[in-house]
Amino acid sequence: MGKIITISREFGSGGRELGKRLADVLGYDYYDKEIIEEISKNKNLDKDYVEKCLDNQFWKSVPLSFGRTFTMIKSNTIRDNLLISVQEILLDIARSDKDCVIVGRNADIILNEYNPFKIFVYADIESKINRCIERMDEKENKTRKNIEHQIKSIDKSRMNSREILTDINWKDLSQYHIAINTTDWDLKQLANTLSNVINNWFMVK
Amino acid sequence: MGKIITISREFGSGGRELGKRLADVLGYDYYDKEIIEEISKNKNLDKDYVEKCLDNQFWKSVPLSFGRTFTMIKSNTIRDNLLISVQEILLDIARSDKDCVIVGRNADIILNEYNPFKIFVYADIESKINRCIERMDEKENKTRKNIEHQIKSIDKSRMNSREILTDINWKDLSQYHIAINTTDWDLKQLANTLSNVINNWFMVK
Repeated sequence: MGKIITISREFGSGGRELGKRLADVLGYDYYDKEIIEEISKNKNLDKDYVEKCLDNQFWKSVPLSFGRTFTMIKSNTIRDNLLISVQEILLDIARSDKDCVIVGRNADIILNEYNPFKIFVYADIESKINRCIERMDEKENKTRKNIEHQIKSIDKSRMNSREILTDINWKDLSQYHIAINTTDWDLKQLANTLSNVINNWFMVK
Repeated sequence: MGKIITISREFGSGGRELGKRLADVLGYDYYDKEIIEEISKNKNLDKDYVEKCLDNQFWKSVPLSFGRTFTMIKSNTIRDNLLISVQEILLDIARSDKDCVIVGRNADIILNEYNPFKIFVYADIESKINRCIERMDEKENKTRKNIEHQIKSIDKSRMNSREILTDINWKDLSQYHIAINTTDWDLKQLANTLSNVINNWFMVK
């Protein structure tokens, strides 16, 4: 069985960059936007549309059976089909037996039986706002207030999407093997040092 | 300024052992029971009595100013005096400029201005019960149910003592630099690998 690292993260905390860097350091495959791209290719749908469908807050209406029992949802809405696609793609990745890092998509829950190393990445709000500003397109004209609102709104959506799969709150530590505050870190250095912790964990596990 | 590592931990999670091992690996001083011993010596009080006074749930009656403003509490109860002693001893430790690991006593909040590396240690309930059984005196005749009740009761008391110092819940991640689930770990190996993370953090900080 391949080693799987899953990363759940607050928006703006650098979880995606950390995941990419961990994959680089460890020589693992990396999945993030790739999952959306695969779905959009398979379903012949626009990438942005797929992402929007999966990330919006209509998640709440999905039946609770999804993800827990892996039962197919008898529904023909596009979103529900997309959710099933996410699940199928994640299971395909796991079954490929390759070592990989998967960012987001509640992969830690969907792939729980594959014993992934589950990381939660978070940071102080100021640090998250600063990271968003650094990455902002020059044309974008968002205030710190706008960005803070965006961060909270996206995190709320992530929390909601989580609630469909589990009764446990998104930030409840018991679901994760480690939770790391990126506020003071250089992410390259963090990935290097964290990769040793992960290698050790897979050895004792 | 000395480097300070603080450890907050769920009862039975191995936080104390991890702290001791981290201190050994890093060559730091270690404070845990030593704080209680110092107080009992200074105040000429029995160690067990001091510990019981500090750990019981009467914490709730202590005024909110304690710990936040470092203002002395105008009170003559033994418990309040003991709380002030804890604060004084922690500040003495920090002012000594020596590198150290401090377990419990809300040292992360009381010594916040000394920029400690703040660790939260937790584990699955089964793992915590097993650890308690391993350490149980042969004469003790506790069932798993008894032990689970004890774990929950002590953690509740720790949570209450925290609420006096901060509005933030004990398990709220935002207060910590890292939270680590010890369930699958050999603590010696964890201390070794975590010491590198901590050394790196003090370097970038």
